[in-house]
Amino acid sequence: MTTTPQALFETHEATLQKAVEACRSRAYWSAFPEMPSPRAYGETAAADGDAAFAAYRDKPFELDQPGVTGTAGGERSPFGFDLGITYPVSDVDALVKAAKAAMPGWRKAGPNGRAGVCLEILKRLNARSFEIANAVMHTTGQAFMMAFQAGAPHAQDRGLEAVAYGWKAMTDQTPAARWEKPQGKNPPLVMDKRFEVVGRGVGLVIGCATFPTWNGYPGLFASLVTGNAVIVKPGPTAILPLAITVKIAREVLAECGLDPNLVTLAIGDTIAKDLALRPEVAVIDYTGSTGFGDWLEQNARQAQVYTEKAGVNTVVIDGTDDPKGMVRNLAFTLSLYSGQMCTTTQVIFVPRDGIQAGPEHMSFDQVVSALAGGVDKFLSDPERAVEVLGAIQSDATLARIDEAAKLGTVVLPSRAIAHPRFPDARIRTPLILTMDAADEDKYGHELFGPISIIVKTDGTADSLERAARLTRTKGALTTGLYSTDPQLIEQATELFVEAGVALSVNLTGGVFVNQSAAFSDFHGTGANPAANAALCDLAFVANRFRVVQSRVPVLEAAQ
Amino acid sequence: MTTTPQALFETHEATLQKAVEACRSRAYWSAFPEMPSPRAYGETAAADGDAAFAAYRDKPFELDQPGVTGTAGGERSPFGFDLGITYPVSDVDALVKAAKAAMPGWRKAGPNGRAGVCLEILKRLNARSFEIANAVMHTTGQAFMMAFQAGAPHAQDRGLEAVAYGWKAMTDQTPAARWEKPQGKNPPLVMDKRFEVVGRGVGLVIGCATFPTWNGYPGLFASLVTGNAVIVKPGPTAILPLAITVKIAREVLAECGLDPNLVTLAIGDTIAKDLALRPEVAVIDYTGSTGFGDWLEQNARQAQVYTEKAGVNTVVIDGTDDPKGMVRNLAFTLSLYSGQMCTTTQVIFVPRDGIQAGPEHMSFDQVVSALAGGVDKFLSDPERAVEVLGAIQSDATLARIDEAAKLGTVVLPSRAIAHPRFPDARIRTPLILTMDAADEDKYGHELFGPISIIVKTDGTADSLERAARLTRTKGALTTGLYSTDPQLIEQATELFVEAGVALSVNLTGGVFVNQSAAFSDFHGTGANPAANAALCDLAFVANRFRVVQSRVPVLEAAQ
Repeated sequence: MTTTPQALFETHEATLQKAVEACRSRAYWSAFPEMPSPRAYGETAAADGDAAFAAYRDKPFELDQPGVTGTAGGERSPFGFDLGITYPVSDVDALVKAAKAAMPGWRKAGPNGRAGVCLEILKRLNARSFEIANAVMHTTGQAFMMAFQAGAPHAQDRGLEAVAYGWKAMTDQTPAARWEKPQGKNPPLVMDKRFEVVGRGVGLVIGCATFPTWNGYPGLFASLVTGNAVIVKPGPTAILPLAITVKIAREVLAECGLDPNLVTLAIGDTIAKDLALRPEVAVIDYTGSTGFGDWLEQNARQAQVYTEKAGVNTVVIDGTDDPKGMVRNLAFTLSLYSGQMCTTTQVIFVPRDGIQAGPEHMSFDQVVSALAGGVDKFLSDPERAVEVLGAIQSDATLARIDEAAKLGTVVLPSRAIAHPRFPDARIRTPLILTMDAADEDKYGHELFGPISIIVKTDGTADSLERAARLTRTKGALTTGLYSTDPQLIEQATELFVEAGVALSVNLTGGVFVNQSAAFSDFHGTGANPAANAALCDLAFVANRFRVVQSRVPVLEAAQ
Repeated sequence: MTTTPQALFETHEATLQKAVEACRSRAYWSAFPEMPSPRAYGETAAADGDAAFAAYRDKPFELDQPGVTGTAGGERSPFGFDLGITYPVSDVDALVKAAKAAMPGWRKAGPNGRAGVCLEILKRLNARSFEIANAVMHTTGQAFMMAFQAGAPHAQDRGLEAVAYGWKAMTDQTPAARWEKPQGKNPPLVMDKRFEVVGRGVGLVIGCATFPTWNGYPGLFASLVTGNAVIVKPGPTAILPLAITVKIAREVLAECGLDPNLVTLAIGDTIAKDLALRPEVAVIDYTGSTGFGDWLEQNARQAQVYTEKAGVNTVVIDGTDDPKGMVRNLAFTLSLYSGQMCTTTQVIFVPRDGIQAGPEHMSFDQVVSALAGGVDKFLSDPERAVEVLGAIQSDATLARIDEAAKLGTVVLPSRAIAHPRFPDARIRTPLILTMDAADEDKYGHELFGPISIIVKTDGTADSLERAARLTRTKGALTTGLYSTDPQLIEQATELFVEAGVALSVNLTGGVFVNQSAAFSDFHGTGANPAANAALCDLAFVANRFRVVQSRVPVLEAAQ
């Protein structure tokens, strides 16, 4: 089948317009069904996804790229088996050269054409959501439901969001205009002007280990739709989801008569650094450690660099009229994907004098017991527990859990759980500690994984001050507050607005602080050290392209 | 009189909407009458402006700022007299502290309120256009008509453009939303969300010597409307226009019950560097030398830095069917403000074998004679000439003219002209040289001032290649092309789009390559070394603020 970018734009325009409107209204909307149901995805979709994943295992991943010099691989499922997949390793020079060569044709497709192509790529990604979910599960350790939702439809929503913002920014002005300046009694001055959108160069997306697609798609699609070629460099432990993505993108591009080298895959130990410093690389999107994020910001001076790094997410408990709801909600938050989300709460501040909980008073210790007990109870059935926890993604996180137990008073130890279907899966329940507020050097930096600390403070004012200060100095993607005092809630909201972090208040039901919905929640603010950009806003897209104009006078006879 | 930001928004909303629409349509529009006519500005406006300017001379400039430690001044009119004005010098710490303290109230005014205040400031600047024009004339050396147009209404248009883009970006999403996610048979999940626009911090505007307002207002108003406080640091030779601006801004802010320290004036030899490195300074706008612009980009790492630096603007002559019109047009371009515009053409590429000019052929030498003769004739009447040329702004430019004469073959020497009204004015007509294309080391870097080089090339292909390459390596704000070959024009347009510079084709009438109209022409592209941003686009405003959200569940009973 062959098609054109313009035809794809027409096919997908209605969806694009809905996405643009959702970004404006911030109301609930999604383009891609989040339930892995046969009705939405087809009767055989689950089985097809399993078969497709199985077919990748223990084989080379077929990808026709320029400059291939060898292969590499080594991914292992945190559920306990090697994937055995190898990927083509392309030479850096060849990738960059091919990316640059592909760009003029991509510019000529225009903003509409590029949006159409991107939406077609997203549509095909969505059709293969089960396959991608398996790939995400068995690289990141997410349990299947999260791997499906976060790794496929929610990630595709975030990709669509980036396309919507990019398209909106590129079409902010008309592509052509007639300018007529009156000259009193004399004929007007008339000029015809054209405004061409030009990508900045090659975009580099550096994928992370835990959310290769959810964190990778915004930068990939933002750079692509705005006219740049993109080189995708997955984290070494989570290649497959992005390799599948690159392959699908290349297929769609080729079908439109465009150069598939607009999207390529980069594999290798030092290739991220090599690419990051290339003069042709004009945009870099990165999620990962603060160390490498800072290195990129300081060294890749020729590029726009968008980073998401580490942070310390906090919750302040002042009081609640639904203690059971609060505990249930926080238990889920702390358990989901074993705390391996950039949005998971790490520190829960509780006043030493306890809190008001409905008509009763709960002491500090009672709050601690309730939280620890709540998590323990929630995870008491191993078959259910593993479906929320997923597996531990990295050796470092595994080690960190054990080390962290020495930092304070353990109120809920981390237990290893056996997975009914994957005997070699490494699964750990959350570790909960208590500490005193003064021990900030122990709890006041990111401890990635299922590690939470309940910190005893002098009172809510102390809790809020510490939470805001940690946000400013260490960064944070989320904060939470439980309070029944409307004035306090308003003051805290002001405080966290000034500190530059998203706040969730009184979550006791089915929305969790770690959740961030496309089109509605800005993920990151760009206003604190955890991230220098927000997914997605105009600032995320507007500088990935430039507008270059030409103008010519229109002579009187032609007016 | 006192008012509120919201009331000012309502007063000015219609103008704001027109500005937003003009930015989209790129059609001709202006909010501020560009002719210094009594009908537009009032019968006494010119006299009032003269009186106001005279009243500043030989006195301290009254400005009530925090932390004043002394005074400084020293401006001299390029038309030959000292202004004798001194300005209050404020301590850096005091300025920064006052700016930060002013910000929370500015945030609370909201995007609409801030836009209203900015538009009122612009309205009052416009009312004092004659006064500002005199200040611009007698600091920059622009002749009165340019000082009026560029220094007042056109600069105000550029300020309004920045307000329009900033307002559009801040209001891109709703400030509050109800998010309802269906849950099948269960009640939906409902959240109320708020999205607060927060400025990034203190903005620093570093003014230039030649266009203190036209180049200063975009950054000033972009930072201000997006919620930042702004410290304005004028170039030492062009303080008065920006001092007047700061004073007016402070008056409007105070009338709204806002802290006037949202806008302050910084004076001093090292104060720009000191301020640029302050952690509180989050945005810097700079026009000036490449040396200091590069220093800011490399060192002010805590800030967004928007720079306009040096470049080499070129024109390629391939052929024309209106040689007289071309010569007249280029004569004006080279003469206007003695080439002291960042948009003035410096290098004119002409093929060694000459060009087709209507039915006749013109040799290279004939083209040179026509251009040199055209400029000479255009400036032959001193009374008319001084009104176009203005005066030479700096000693360095004066010296450069004399030095440059040694670089190549002089085909039109620079003459000193006496000004009928200002005996000590330093006025020079354009110097025109010819060189061979191989002498790129001589013509291929910015020679600021009335210095133009007609460069002999191997042919149009050679001319175009050199122009594009200079653009890429040295930067350019404008390029021009004269050709009667539609295919060549299309190829050249492609070439300059890829090189990232605005192109004007076949200017033979009343529009000049140095002119850049607000709402229609993007000034700079951000795609070549002359400037890292464009005035104005979404990228110029979108990262000067952040959106910080809060969300709270809506319980079933309340839905």
